[in-house]
Amino acid sequence: MPELRKDPVTGRWVIIASDRVKRPSDFLREPVVRQAGRFCPFCPGNELKTPPELLAYRTHGGPNEPGWTLRVIPNKFPALRVEGDMNRGGDGLYDRMNGVGAHEVFIETPEHTATLAELPEKRLEELFWAFRDRIVDLRRDVRLRYILLYKNHGEAAGATLEHSHSQLIALPVLPKRVQEKMEGARRYYEFKERCIYCDIIRQDVDDAERVVLETDHFLVLCPYAPRFPFETWILPKRHESHFENTDGTALQNLGWVMRMILRKIDKVLERPAFNYMVHGSPLQQGAVPHYHWHIEVIPKLAKIAGFEWGSGFYINPTPPEEAARFLREAGLP
Amino acid sequence: MPELRKDPVTGRWVIIASDRVKRPSDFLREPVVRQAGRFCPFCPGNELKTPPELLAYRTHGGPNEPGWTLRVIPNKFPALRVEGDMNRGGDGLYDRMNGVGAHEVFIETPEHTATLAELPEKRLEELFWAFRDRIVDLRRDVRLRYILLYKNHGEAAGATLEHSHSQLIALPVLPKRVQEKMEGARRYYEFKERCIYCDIIRQDVDDAERVVLETDHFLVLCPYAPRFPFETWILPKRHESHFENTDGTALQNLGWVMRMILRKIDKVLERPAFNYMVHGSPLQQGAVPHYHWHIEVIPKLAKIAGFEWGSGFYINPTPPEEAARFLREAGLP
Repeated sequence: MPELRKDPVTGRWVIIASDRVKRPSDFLREPVVRQAGRFCPFCPGNELKTPPELLAYRTHGGPNEPGWTLRVIPNKFPALRVEGDMNRGGDGLYDRMNGVGAHEVFIETPEHTATLAELPEKRLEELFWAFRDRIVDLRRDVRLRYILLYKNHGEAAGATLEHSHSQLIALPVLPKRVQEKMEGARRYYEFKERCIYCDIIRQDVDDAERVVLETDHFLVLCPYAPRFPFETWILPKRHESHFENTDGTALQNLGWVMRMILRKIDKVLERPAFNYMVHGSPLQQGAVPHYHWHIEVIPKLAKIAGFEWGSGFYINPTPPEEAARFLREAGLP
Repeated sequence: MPELRKDPVTGRWVIIASDRVKRPSDFLREPVVRQAGRFCPFCPGNELKTPPELLAYRTHGGPNEPGWTLRVIPNKFPALRVEGDMNRGGDGLYDRMNGVGAHEVFIETPEHTATLAELPEKRLEELFWAFRDRIVDLRRDVRLRYILLYKNHGEAAGATLEHSHSQLIALPVLPKRVQEKMEGARRYYEFKERCIYCDIIRQDVDDAERVVLETDHFLVLCPYAPRFPFETWILPKRHESHFENTDGTALQNLGWVMRMILRKIDKVLERPAFNYMVHGSPLQQGAVPHYHWHIEVIPKLAKIAGFEWGSGFYINPTPPEEAARFLREAGLP
């Protein structure tokens, strides 16, 4: 019998289609492959082909020269722009404003063909430091309400340049899914006086069957009502609403955790395209007891886009307990 | 300058990236192509390879024999099942229930290679009659709360069988996007004492720039804050909350309207994959003044899935005024 499950935060129901369970080998396999050789604006030596860097960690060289291990630049074709007024306005019953914001690119490695999973642990830690540094810088602009950090890996997941990179979009409004999560978490807190994510962590550690791995600082699990097969969340075990308040020890551990998850996904699902999104708290808000930052990692396995896009209803052919077991048991060298 | 626009019903902001406007020729072109020749369970003569039909319109022959022009069958691999108890229950903080519901397939034509846009107007009218007939039958089951009617056309839009068909899923819960729309529309009604969709129709007819076409019964427009390039809505001009209450004259006109839209989309975008979804009202609810059924038609043009899936934030490279102009001006033979 298929099962309907409800996401406890957003109230979204999904269908876990247990009658047609899909195992890793059932999914369309389109491993992400890198092709060196073509001109790439993200490769060392081409620094002047991109907008000037906002931040770089480097072993040698000066700004906009080779020698960096991580480099942050404005997106050359930004979806939003830093300059200009918000200019909020209406047009009859419609509302609009200028696309004020920021759109940045984090080049994660000088090596064109390396994937994030293949980089040393230290490089992933530095990526999270760079996320933190950029948030701390951008939040001084009071027009900005929210920062989304995300990665599109592979063409199927929306990447247009193959050289490994993450992106940042700073917005003057809250994205809808973040708003839903904040509100759902607030309602739970009003009712229970506990953070719902803290409760999820407690229950899932007890249940164990959806846990992928656990460290001193983080719990990695496949959520109870996932929209997508092998959807995986990384949650800090200590309550913290804002990603940018994470301390150095935890950020170091996060580098290890993310690398491990991506390597497990690569092993079980044969190097699939994937996305991750960091869901933190709104910028101009102090620490709150009801919301808890986390990262969603979503392998792109099936073309299930149409109906789900339109309805907000998801049919997931892989129970999270199955997905977690495959990821948990994936031995790594 | 890019522009942020807010959907007046759901409150969702989207980025209309006017700096990188995409015209029809800028999109990846992957026309949907049909290949005859392989075995197809939806073709006439193979009626016994599918579950027994629930409904058929036919010129000759008996049930489950050739002679039909439209045939409705249960999905052989249903996401939900009609038999069984709901068995709602909890597991700590999580909620679940059995996947009770219905999943049906509307085979739109006996001809394997014909697309919906290529069928005679009368066939499209019959499809909408069949939608209505199946809703009227299923709503007698009080466990069911909502019926979604939709179509996946082309592999990129999630179709797994190429023979032209639509689908129905009857659910024991409200899908999230429908709930958001119902709530947004109700809030507007409480504030204004008017249906927001009726107001959209009035304003967009006046503005004219987002209108694709208008008949006595329907307005077709590209919405003010579309998530996707060339997203198109079909709205009945007379207020009506429930699709299944549409009268015969309007259903006849809807056949003409849908055929016209699909032909315009085929012409402008070169036969793209697409989805449509009929968004009606919950089943066990009488007529309401605040909600207004409509159909969303979404051509599948770009792989923008990852970030948008994760965040609920959409970057749309085609302003709806541009999209509407292309569709409006697409002359048809």
